Amino acid sequence: MKKYCFGADIGGTTVKLGLFDTEGNILDKWEIKTHTENEGAAILPDTAAAILGKIEERKLKPEEIVGIGVGVPGPVSIDGVVPHTANLGWGYKEVTKELSERTGLPCKAGNDANVAALGEMWVGGAKGHKDVLLLTLGTGVGGGIIVDGKILTGAHGAGGEIGHIHVEDHIEEHCGCGNQGCLEQFASATGIARLARTALAESESPSLLREGEITAKAVFDALKEGDELAKQVVERFGKYLGTAIAVMTSILDPEVIVIGGGVSKAGQILLDYTRKYFRPNAYKASKDIEFALAQLGNDAGIYGCAKLILD
Amino acid sequence: MKKYCFGADIGGTTVKLGLFDTEGNILDKWEIKTHTENEGAAILPDTAAAILGKIEERKLKPEEIVGIGVGVPGPVSIDGVVPHTANLGWGYKEVTKELSERTGLPCKAGNDANVAALGEMWVGGAKGHKDVLLLTLGTGVGGGIIVDGKILTGAHGAGGEIGHIHVEDHIEEHCGCGNQGCLEQFASATGIARLARTALAESESPSLLREGEITAKAVFDALKEGDELAKQVVERFGKYLGTAIAVMTSILDPEVIVIGGGVSKAGQILLDYTRKYFRPNAYKASKDIEFALAQLGNDAGIYGCAKLILD
Repeated sequence: MKKYCFGADIGGTTVKLGLFDTEGNILDKWEIKTHTENEGAAILPDTAAAILGKIEERKLKPEEIVGIGVGVPGPVSIDGVVPHTANLGWGYKEVTKELSERTGLPCKAGNDANVAALGEMWVGGAKGHKDVLLLTLGTGVGGGIIVDGKILTGAHGAGGEIGHIHVEDHIEEHCGCGNQGCLEQFASATGIARLARTALAESESPSLLREGEITAKAVFDALKEGDELAKQVVERFGKYLGTAIAVMTSILDPEVIVIGGGVSKAGQILLDYTRKYFRPNAYKASKDIEFALAQLGNDAGIYGCAKLILD
Repeated sequence: MKKYCFGADIGGTTVKLGLFDTEGNILDKWEIKTHTENEGAAILPDTAAAILGKIEERKLKPEEIVGIGVGVPGPVSIDGVVPHTANLGWGYKEVTKELSERTGLPCKAGNDANVAALGEMWVGGAKGHKDVLLLTLGTGVGGGIIVDGKILTGAHGAGGEIGHIHVEDHIEEHCGCGNQGCLEQFASATGIARLARTALAESESPSLLREGEITAKAVFDALKEGDELAKQVVERFGKYLGTAIAVMTSILDPEVIVIGGGVSKAGQILLDYTRKYFRPNAYKASKDIEFALAQLGNDAGIYGCAKLILD
């Protein structure tokens, strides 16, 4: 009998949903709005209704459905409880228990960055590996760690919070987490733009970056045009990111590093500048490790959610 | 029927051996010399003979013995193969296969620092926890990581090589691993002595450290006497170690940090200076995590070896 499962990646704006078969083929993909008002009380009922509606539409039988995997943008304990998720409006929430009661299906939950790593391992940039380090460079820096095929959840559901690795002692600004000098302040899209603004202010040399909006994309585009100031910015970015990845590999000894998120659209040049600073600081066992780009984009989460419930 | 197992912690000078019951009680403990000559060809035969001798002496029946856990000072793959272990003289060695053939008993092998962490989790400073980060501050800096009760072995058997985390860009000397700026260069016994020699050379202020041999112990002893220069050295040590542990906890989110090795004999004052620099750089989920001293000393390895084969 062919079997199916659902992935539900809950974000602050939308809940992304997917219907999968057990081989990792996506059969349907849709999204619903995330209603965060009233402490996000409607989010799980809406998600349950969307899944039950799809079961009805597709005429799936209960015994054909393995269950639902759920991704949450915050720490999730191994038994599916979240203590607090600011951008969903949630306080303490027993996610898997509630969703299971509302659908009658088995549920498992994980942190969104961690399940994205699981998705990339299943059918994406880390396919064929079981020790994986995924970095998501977007507005912030997220991470997902897979050890021997399983998500490293951590004692408080905060495993893989690699955006908050301390990388710089000398910085005035505070990170969103409250600390100073986090990787996220240098390697996220906003961090790269900040590095560029600082470089522009500290120098009078001409640069393509002096025209138009200063974004991470503009920096990498200018670099590809041979812009010297953009090169300095990307060198600094590469030093922070490459050194931080070297530190992570000394601890975790993964098989592959996968880089995703909006910033990774810069492509091979991003990997090149990162590896340049990674290699001299990496422990010998990891110096020649594979670097890959993520392949699933915004769908990594729903793929990983599906894999979570299938495991 | 009461059951037993053996732990064999193979070091460069001696092989430490222990006979345990399945509750973690040590019934016998002894050691044999490690013969590293002739590419260490005699090490496993000697170890096997020592264990078979003990079985005979104690009149243990084969069905009472669960097996042998082995600790090796170098990377060990999940199937008990070591690629190369410099201080035993070994090249490629199928450790568990050979020891199993020589004794007729099931064998499992792990890296010595990793099995020490398992030992501390079983009956030592991390008892009752299952997400553990152990740091061993001795001549070098070793580490053992336990995730959800299991050793984090890594893809090349090099998981937990935390002595080689990059912590300093500005250093001339190379680490034993070939890189520059590794944690081991600042937080090991030799690293602390080096920090002290540098501080003494850069300052003319009086210090107890200007008399006698400069060792990590002398630095902590002088600190306890109120020595100002020793305090500066321990502050630097604490900054490197505390910040590095903060980085590790952002990645791993453990329940407890355990510090062992000869340097940890400094006791509570070492934990205090480490936490001082840990807390501001740790991710919020880990800021109040427990720090503990290792309890099993040089026996952590044989305890961990025993636990490895019992799991």
